[in-house]
Amino acid sequence: MPVTLFTGQWADLPFEEVARHAAEWGYDGLEIAASGDHLDLKRADEDPAYLRSRLDVLDRHGLRVFAISNHLTGQAVCDDPIDFRHEAIVRPYTWGDGDPEGVRRRAAEDMKRSARVARKLGADTVVGFTGSSIWQYVAMFPPVPAKVIEAGYEDFAARWNPILDVFAAEGVRFAHEVHPSEIAYDYWTSVRAVEALGGRPEFGFNWDPSHMMWQGVDPVGFIWDFKDRIHHVDCKDTRLRPGNGRAGVLGSHLPWGDPRRGWDFVSTGRGDVPWEDGFRALAAIGYDGPVSVEWEDAGMDRLRGAAEAAAYVRGLLWPLPSASFDSAFSHQE
Amino acid sequence: MPVTLFTGQWADLPFEEVARHAAEWGYDGLEIAASGDHLDLKRADEDPAYLRSRLDVLDRHGLRVFAISNHLTGQAVCDDPIDFRHEAIVRPYTWGDGDPEGVRRRAAEDMKRSARVARKLGADTVVGFTGSSIWQYVAMFPPVPAKVIEAGYEDFAARWNPILDVFAAEGVRFAHEVHPSEIAYDYWTSVRAVEALGGRPEFGFNWDPSHMMWQGVDPVGFIWDFKDRIHHVDCKDTRLRPGNGRAGVLGSHLPWGDPRRGWDFVSTGRGDVPWEDGFRALAAIGYDGPVSVEWEDAGMDRLRGAAEAAAYVRGLLWPLPSASFDSAFSHQE
Amino acid sequence: MPVTLFTGQWADLPFEEVARHAAEWGYDGLEIAASGDHLDLKRADEDPAYLRSRLDVLDRHGLRVFAISNHLTGQAVCDDPIDFRHEAIVRPYTWGDGDPEGVRRRAAEDMKRSARVARKLGADTVVGFTGSSIWQYVAMFPPVPAKVIEAGYEDFAARWNPILDVFAAEGVRFAHEVHPSEIAYDYWTSVRAVEALGGRPEFGFNWDPSHMMWQGVDPVGFIWDFKDRIHHVDCKDTRLRPGNGRAGVLGSHLPWGDPRRGWDFVSTGRGDVPWEDGFRALAAIGYDGPVSVEWEDAGMDRLRGAAEAAAYVRGLLWPLPSASFDSAFSHQE
Amino acid sequence: MPVTLFTGQWADLPFEEVARHAAEWGYDGLEIAASGDHLDLKRADEDPAYLRSRLDVLDRHGLRVFAISNHLTGQAVCDDPIDFRHEAIVRPYTWGDGDPEGVRRRAAEDMKRSARVARKLGADTVVGFTGSSIWQYVAMFPPVPAKVIEAGYEDFAARWNPILDVFAAEGVRFAHEVHPSEIAYDYWTSVRAVEALGGRPEFGFNWDPSHMMWQGVDPVGFIWDFKDRIHHVDCKDTRLRPGNGRAGVLGSHLPWGDPRRGWDFVSTGRGDVPWEDGFRALAAIGYDGPVSVEWEDAGMDRLRGAAEAAAYVRGLLWPLPSASFDSAFSHQE
Amino acid sequence: MPVTLFTGQWADLPFEEVARHAAEWGYDGLEIAASGDHLDLKRADEDPAYLRSRLDVLDRHGLRVFAISNHLTGQAVCDDPIDFRHEAIVRPYTWGDGDPEGVRRRAAEDMKRSARVARKLGADTVVGFTGSSIWQYVAMFPPVPAKVIEAGYEDFAARWNPILDVFAAEGVRFAHEVHPSEIAYDYWTSVRAVEALGGRPEFGFNWDPSHMMWQGVDPVGFIWDFKDRIHHVDCKDTRLRPGNGRAGVLGSHLPWGDPRRGWDFVSTGRGDVPWEDGFRALAAIGYDGPVSVEWEDAGMDRLRGAAEAAAYVRGLLWPLPSASFDSAFSHQE
Amino acid sequence: MPVTLFTGQWADLPFEEVARHAAEWGYDGLEIAASGDHLDLKRADEDPAYLRSRLDVLDRHGLRVFAISNHLTGQAVCDDPIDFRHEAIVRPYTWGDGDPEGVRRRAAEDMKRSARVARKLGADTVVGFTGSSIWQYVAMFPPVPAKVIEAGYEDFAARWNPILDVFAAEGVRFAHEVHPSEIAYDYWTSVRAVEALGGRPEFGFNWDPSHMMWQGVDPVGFIWDFKDRIHHVDCKDTRLRPGNGRAGVLGSHLPWGDPRRGWDFVSTGRGDVPWEDGFRALAAIGYDGPVSVEWEDAGMDRLRGAAEAAAYVRGLLWPLPSASFDSAFSHQE
Repeated sequence: MPVTLFTGQWADLPFEEVARHAAEWGYDGLEIAASGDHLDLKRADEDPAYLRSRLDVLDRHGLRVFAISNHLTGQAVCDDPIDFRHEAIVRPYTWGDGDPEGVRRRAAEDMKRSARVARKLGADTVVGFTGSSIWQYVAMFPPVPAKVIEAGYEDFAARWNPILDVFAAEGVRFAHEVHPSEIAYDYWTSVRAVEALGGRPEFGFNWDPSHMMWQGVDPVGFIWDFKDRIHHVDCKDTRLRPGNGRAGVLGSHLPWGDPRRGWDFVSTGRGDVPWEDGFRALAAIGYDGPVSVEWEDAGMDRLRGAAEAAAYVRGLLWPLPSASFDSAFSHQE
Repeated sequence: MPVTLFTGQWADLPFEEVARHAAEWGYDGLEIAASGDHLDLKRADEDPAYLRSRLDVLDRHGLRVFAISNHLTGQAVCDDPIDFRHEAIVRPYTWGDGDPEGVRRRAAEDMKRSARVARKLGADTVVGFTGSSIWQYVAMFPPVPAKVIEAGYEDFAARWNPILDVFAAEGVRFAHEVHPSEIAYDYWTSVRAVEALGGRPEFGFNWDPSHMMWQGVDPVGFIWDFKDRIHHVDCKDTRLRPGNGRAGVLGSHLPWGDPRRGWDFVSTGRGDVPWEDGFRALAAIGYDGPVSVEWEDAGMDRLRGAAEAAAYVRGLLWPLPSASFDSAFSHQE
Repeated sequence: MPVTLFTGQWADLPFEEVARHAAEWGYDGLEIAASGDHLDLKRADEDPAYLRSRLDVLDRHGLRVFAISNHLTGQAVCDDPIDFRHEAIVRPYTWGDGDPEGVRRRAAEDMKRSARVARKLGADTVVGFTGSSIWQYVAMFPPVPAKVIEAGYEDFAARWNPILDVFAAEGVRFAHEVHPSEIAYDYWTSVRAVEALGGRPEFGFNWDPSHMMWQGVDPVGFIWDFKDRIHHVDCKDTRLRPGNGRAGVLGSHLPWGDPRRGWDFVSTGRGDVPWEDGFRALAAIGYDGPVSVEWEDAGMDRLRGAAEAAAYVRGLLWPLPSASFDSAFSHQE
Repeated sequence: MPVTLFTGQWADLPFEEVARHAAEWGYDGLEIAASGDHLDLKRADEDPAYLRSRLDVLDRHGLRVFAISNHLTGQAVCDDPIDFRHEAIVRPYTWGDGDPEGVRRRAAEDMKRSARVARKLGADTVVGFTGSSIWQYVAMFPPVPAKVIEAGYEDFAARWNPILDVFAAEGVRFAHEVHPSEIAYDYWTSVRAVEALGGRPEFGFNWDPSHMMWQGVDPVGFIWDFKDRIHHVDCKDTRLRPGNGRAGVLGSHLPWGDPRRGWDFVSTGRGDVPWEDGFRALAAIGYDGPVSVEWEDAGMDRLRGAAEAAAYVRGLLWPLPSASFDSAFSHQE
Repeated sequence: MPVTLFTGQWADLPFEEVARHAAEWGYDGLEIAASGDHLDLKRADEDPAYLRSRLDVLDRHGLRVFAISNHLTGQAVCDDPIDFRHEAIVRPYTWGDGDPEGVRRRAAEDMKRSARVARKLGADTVVGFTGSSIWQYVAMFPPVPAKVIEAGYEDFAARWNPILDVFAAEGVRFAHEVHPSEIAYDYWTSVRAVEALGGRPEFGFNWDPSHMMWQGVDPVGFIWDFKDRIHHVDCKDTRLRPGNGRAGVLGSHLPWGDPRRGWDFVSTGRGDVPWEDGFRALAAIGYDGPVSVEWEDAGMDRLRGAAEAAAYVRGLLWPLPSASFDSAFSHQE
Repeated sequence: MPVTLFTGQWADLPFEEVARHAAEWGYDGLEIAASGDHLDLKRADEDPAYLRSRLDVLDRHGLRVFAISNHLTGQAVCDDPIDFRHEAIVRPYTWGDGDPEGVRRRAAEDMKRSARVARKLGADTVVGFTGSSIWQYVAMFPPVPAKVIEAGYEDFAARWNPILDVFAAEGVRFAHEVHPSEIAYDYWTSVRAVEALGGRPEFGFNWDPSHMMWQGVDPVGFIWDFKDRIHHVDCKDTRLRPGNGRAGVLGSHLPWGDPRRGWDFVSTGRGDVPWEDGFRALAAIGYDGPVSVEWEDAGMDRLRGAAEAAAYVRGLLWPLPSASFDSAFSHQE
């Protein structure tokens, strides 16, 4: 499995600089975020020269691309409300006048675009978020009727099926990242999201275990249960603070890095995610796609962190055996 | 400590019927919800005869009142958005035309009313919720600037200080229930909410440990740390499903009672709340107010449940000792 | 759900005496074991008067029958080796000359008989074991080729399909008890056993959580995952000794009741099985069959134990609610 | 096993009153403390009429005596320093002028006396403490040479061997309670204390699990490992506060009942001691002596507590089975 | 302690090749398996030139031998049944005509041979398995009378005492590996196996913690309790899957490396065995023999794995201190 | 944060040699112990040339000093009793004639001296112990009246306030190490010690988590709660033995390194202290002082250990980020 760097958290830096760093740190490629100057989907969809320029950057640094990310725009496809938070993360051509339904529609168009661009870049996967019209009801108080939840999944299917049709046409898969704020944020919502789409194969998951950890979801079991839909792997790590009775799982509205939080993101390899178990399970189901470092750590300089993360992940990817160990001493066919 | 029944989950029944049941089951009194025909705050505030009628019901059944609840209206004071969920839980005179800011203002007026009515009923505590303009950002994605959080606490203080002024004038305390959807939903948000109000003594907590359980907050430690602000006690119990790797703490949008949920409310005494530790801590800080059963269990008939809960809670309230046990064998003064 | 007593551990006593006790202790019926004088399947299958006599005993004591048990004979259907242990538990007409394959065939015939007799008794379920030709390889040393395991499941299907054909014809279901020594002894072997039979509906499970406990299998999750195949419920309880580093999960060849064992059977309600969670899950999937006490405890007199177990189990079976608790305070349809 | 009440924590009350209470609460007998007017060993040793008067009290209330306690005096046998704490718990004739070595010698004489009095009362066990000259070094800082520890055990043997000689002569056993402040306070110090005495059979243990709990010692395993030396059983219960990161195991110099403590004594049956496992293990090793309630709970009135504790303990003492449960369905001899 | 490689899992490779690898990876020597061309005991016992050739291989690569292994043949000494699995692991001269009792006797002779050969090779330890006639009854159902278990230990003693007589004569020790399928597979069966042999000193243990892990046996405590019988150390590592309620400890008949298994073998240092604690305990009891890597990992190429394991183990073997750390600041003799 | 070596456990070696080693191992400086020839406070206070000689040693090896330690003398300030243990650790000029009160007074004078010497050396912190007159009562048996505990804190304040006055005058802070034997040995005793001093700022803590571990105190939470008083950091690591039911937390009077102990000190980085969490919390509160390795491990040669510890600690001290990671993809100010 190749090791890539997700460029989302580096979008403030020029793409070329990120590529140069990644190559120096030993990454095999980039999971290019459709942000900053890294990848403008509209231009890439319309302008072959621009598209070529992105590949040239990769070539100059000996990097490859297996998947691109359009997390931020995907968030706006189903979200309700659409507000200042979305304005800050989507491109102006998606935000437009900010009318919520308009934003959602333009976001959906951009998701279709991402499938086309992925294909043109030679990548077969788009990684991202779906957004959700019902995440806002997660607390279940004031009471929320079951039909509202049902309608949320229907809205999801209605908005994403046309997008996924484009994916199907392009031979590209969408890898949704299980994450709070999304239609699928844990195990059973993932099951239900797949059902809402009638199990269509274009929709699968970006196995990013970071948010499963604090929710109590076993990320390794997730791999087995969705073994036909693990379309991508993102390595973001989470550290759970040992239960001290004051740090809560919801984060207390505290910023990243605050030691009072019940959990936090840390440099890949420094948290509680059972990476080795996960990679073994991925090998067992035959996953051979990229393993992409999504680096977030509010307590470490990213230049150091992304370098150590590359080495950490690579150190867990080893050759598989060609025979079982007991065949060495037992002469049965 | 007297044992009372919170009438919120019985608001579909006539007040007289609830009172009769409660008396039969051995409750000492009621924590009257300002819902249904149990208590109409507007009438109670304006019509002494109506007020008297409520007390007459209690008298007929030998019950007392120590606190009233205005959870549902309190929810609307700070909430954003205000939507169909609020319409379903507040009184028409609070909902009015449904304009969000109008709803919030009328809800605030109703909270002031609750203090006046509590005083008239001879109760010194109003139990309830605060609502929150920033709960919607709990997932912290899309990113939320720290100033937005800060503004949320300022909004809370701005809306609640005038309400609490009325409480102060009436000699009544507000007991906020730590709960998702509220400004204070865990330990550190409780600390911050108190700070936002400058520590004014009218604001304290309804010790309801049910939502602390699944958040990993130690409810017993909470009692000690807020020992001057435990203004009321509600006994709602929570059962945590043993970690099976699929049940998540956020509930997967599943209804109450679904066995796939990571936790659920159960009849008081059947869950994981360490009630005995809690009651011992309450005794240690000198709490002598009511212990009120807030009964919710999607898997048990409520008529059976509320009866067994009364017996359960009463069984944990025993006479305290008059001397330390080692003074019996050690003759030191 | 009616509460029954499984008579297997009482087969040394006359059926009439067991029935009398069970009625006195408050059981609603019996899960009649095809052992001792409780139920001779051959006679019952051939002699209507004998069959009637069994029902008469029940009638005299006001008891009902919902399921019968043929655990001991079922064990011999697939087992390998067949040895002195089987001789001690099957009827002479099944043991015959003790030739292993003959024993297996006669056991299979007796299982068919059990379906016919169940039907005649008005019961729709036979509870029991399957035996296994591959349990003996559980240690996986000396090495066992995968094809041997595969052959074990094929042997199971080959031997049980004809039996289950009779069950299908009679409209009776077989409820296999997940248990060491059997083809399905944990979660994944249960999945595979169902697959080996092509998912035919006559084959399901007797939810007896006792052996799931020490194997680390979540018995509550099992209910949900096999929610269409929970055909019966047996309540045998298991106490896990807190990890002291010397008591092992395999039992050290120590007899029941030895305190050095890592776990032991105890009177229902005195162990670690989460019965209430289990019964709630059973209610959630719509199970309304019998809940049967399978009483085993090497440290308690059975006369006392079976009485307290009846009360314990009954105490967890309560009326379900007719509406959700939040509908009481939220006026949404 | 008979259920007795240890009278040490009731020494401020007249013996007659304690006996009357104990009989009312259903106790079978008393573990008489050599304190207050309950039992004056000097008088009992010298004055047959006084001795008789103690038995008369028991007779009047239908109580029996199986063991007496001389914990407080035993503490002074080895302790260093001897100070105001000892003055407060030993009788004046033991304290005398308070010269430490004199106190120790007089305490040793009183322990011999306890053996003689036990014999005269028809009891075969004296329960108590040994004291320790090296407990004061438990923190191991400032550093303590190994020879100082060695000397502590030698001092223990030198002081207790002559006492135990009297026990041997009287046919009475000493049951030491594993407890901080004593020569044997946990598992390995118990092993070493037995070794220091060359394994003489008069010295054994009072199985009181309360202090094993917070030290992390498995009280059930202790029963098996010392199965020839469990001479008595005291039921004092301990509640461990769930780890909240602030409550420490050493108690923080906080008084009993303070909710900040890491653990506390609670009414028997309300703590974390696995009583049922313990009683099963006691039955397994053939223990048939008294089970004595040592009641301490800083948060409950003792009159209520000792009554509920009697019922609790009795509820765990049931008839043993006469045969194994599988013999009921397996006809092997 | 020297670091060796156990050659059993490499028996398909020529001995010379294994030796070359081991030397390159930094091993100090080999625990030679009596398998493949590594070591033919019959030839080695009868042909000095062959024996010399084995030592020459070691010499060529600068390796030493401290112990040899005859696990596979030992398995056949007591096993019942003897079947195709044994045929696949013992040498033809041991299998012969496959008559079970004949196989057992020839296996016993081969074990005697292993003692003689060890002595000739300059090694003082043979590592291996004992087999067991009663392992097949581990499930305890169908019921197994206590006398059958007792007979199993007697059979073990009867078969192994003559073998151990040869060991005694040669001054060689047998190091049994605690393992399922064997007479001693956990803590208490190890105690009983030693007792069955009357505690004779030739019989001891190969401390291989891998199978203790999933059984819940504390491998470090095992070292202390058998501190006079730790004759060898094998480092096979085990990873326990965090409890997800579906993975059971018995392995579900699933092959090594399947992510559904409850535990699996992994490259030494990548599992849950507390190696550092173990090595510290070994140092504390004065063990100074070899620490031998038994490498098994179905998810890693063995050439990589055995190299990293050598480095891992070596990294935990460090010089011991010459004085206690507190003697540096405390001037007591 | 600079990495220093605490020289207390090296006081048997010449200061020059320790400095040379420390420099070679990569330490930035020394936390100089006032022991051996490392630092004679009396001479340093009185003789500028001697003082200069100490700094010269540091200069020769490129080391710096941020704090000095006077643990051993501090222990004698409040301790009761004063005995052979203190004689072994304090300087003769402090011990004098050994009269306890005289020792205490001379120890107090030496603590004042340490503040003056720290200032002269350019260090702003003295690390150490306080001693305690009430630690001896930690077992709370024989009973200890509350007023005795109260008096212990008053004694502490009375003896330390004059010392801290000198610290205040010198602009030096005292960093007390939370440790058994001291007035503050866990969380709540630390709270009370600060209160006893009226919260004066010269008194704070040396964050040494080693003794918090086995007491169940969360060392990371301690940092936040005392965030204004973390004056120094010592890195001594503790390994907790997994609960095996025999190893107790009090250590069983067993020497360091004995595998039966419930916990032990180990080389920094090899224990259970969550160092990374701790360093992250230190960074979060703005701590920028030294991180000092206090090396103790009874099972490792100290020359190896102190070298690996330096590398370990340094590996956890990395550059902090200059911006939050989500600012990279969200353009909000």
